[in-house]
Amino acid sequence: MNTPPLPSRRKLLAWTAATAAASTLPPRAGSASAASAPIALKKGDVVLFQGDSITDAGRDRKTQDQANNPAALGRGYPFHIGGQLLAEHAGLKLKVYNRGISGHKVPDLDARWQADTIDLKPAVLSILIGVNDIWHKLNGRYDGTPQIYREGFAALLKRTTDALPDVKLVICEPFVLRCGAVNDTWFPEFEERRGHAKEVAAAAGAIWVPFQEMFDQAVAAGTEPAYWAGDGVHPTHAGHALMAEAWRKAAGI
Amino acid sequence: MNTPPLPSRRKLLAWTAATAAASTLPPRAGSASAASAPIALKKGDVVLFQGDSITDAGRDRKTQDQANNPAALGRGYPFHIGGQLLAEHAGLKLKVYNRGISGHKVPDLDARWQADTIDLKPAVLSILIGVNDIWHKLNGRYDGTPQIYREGFAALLKRTTDALPDVKLVICEPFVLRCGAVNDTWFPEFEERRGHAKEVAAAAGAIWVPFQEMFDQAVAAGTEPAYWAGDGVHPTHAGHALMAEAWRKAAGI
Repeated sequence: MNTPPLPSRRKLLAWTAATAAASTLPPRAGSASAASAPIALKKGDVVLFQGDSITDAGRDRKTQDQANNPAALGRGYPFHIGGQLLAEHAGLKLKVYNRGISGHKVPDLDARWQADTIDLKPAVLSILIGVNDIWHKLNGRYDGTPQIYREGFAALLKRTTDALPDVKLVICEPFVLRCGAVNDTWFPEFEERRGHAKEVAAAAGAIWVPFQEMFDQAVAAGTEPAYWAGDGVHPTHAGHALMAEAWRKAAGI
Repeated sequence: MNTPPLPSRRKLLAWTAATAAASTLPPRAGSASAASAPIALKKGDVVLFQGDSITDAGRDRKTQDQANNPAALGRGYPFHIGGQLLAEHAGLKLKVYNRGISGHKVPDLDARWQADTIDLKPAVLSILIGVNDIWHKLNGRYDGTPQIYREGFAALLKRTTDALPDVKLVICEPFVLRCGAVNDTWFPEFEERRGHAKEVAAAAGAIWVPFQEMFDQAVAAGTEPAYWAGDGVHPTHAGHALMAEAWRKAAGI
């Protein structure tokens, strides 16, 4: 176990409790309140996963326009969730897409948002973004501060709900495991950024998927961090499957 | 709906009921009774998936020796099951492998059984085999009768339990959907072969996964066959995820 005790551990809620709290969060006045209602899937709904390499998970770009194509969904949590939703809601003829792209940060999503998100008219839009916003800053390839992450993420969600007022937003908590490429230089800034993501999600009336709490709890239960993400950032097969379970619990579908 | 009523429909049990019945089947006197006990996973257990293209599901051969490698598990039911077991039994450090190979029949499994199965020392061995044994016969590439399928399958299982007396066998029911490449020429021989598989599994004290009943029930509930397997043989993303649920329910893990 190479995980020193973290101050944030003491604040840990079981992720199930956090999930329950987030999913019952009242919408803020003036926010996109439609997005905070429980998800009720309808026939033909598009379910879209957006994000970086964690979402991308080796997906086949050539078939990305084919809904429900296994290769196009990658080998991560969108593959698991997509299959389960398609199996359990067969009558709805859902269309599941993955448009995560490795290395992307909030501004990269913004640059391709019209074609890769809004034009697909998702009924359910899942977003996991933020780890590269800090990682690329730590290694000198980017200079965006936590405040720039917060403002850019909030603007992206406003742009989304302006264009798609009925979209159900599912915002996934950025997370890291304390191993591999993740060392002390990531903290406390990473925690600050996680806080921003959660507040931005709440302001948008989004469902919140507490991935960091989930992984923290899994490690606290005795599994070493690398079991869930060898390099601290990219989940293993076990990690992605656990994420899928948490996502479905939070989204309620 | 292009599915004419089948005689076998009238005999359909809900697959959950069939599963419950199969998993409580008493071992036959003199059979490998150890395999019929409920599965109790132990630390370091190897879980191995064997079969044809349905199991293979586009897996990466180059990484097949790496346990739990997502690419090596393909894009089908072994990927789903493997991820879920790894996530939910993290403390056990399971090792999941997929060695399904497209186009294989019972004699093809037999030819590579030592290196691809016995040498891996699986604690849990899942086998789905039989569709090519009839398909290749129908298209003139093979001349094995249903009786040859039965005898070959039984011999393969005996060889397995002789070498691995503690292995837990999970035998999956061969299945087809009534669409694509599957037409009336497949019947009633395919049903005869399914019957052989079930009897061979019972004789070996194996757990039985009733995939045909499951898909028949899903189609009877109103979803067209192609939703589950476009060509009638190879499951879609939805089909594989449904198989994973049925497998886990039958195996009890």
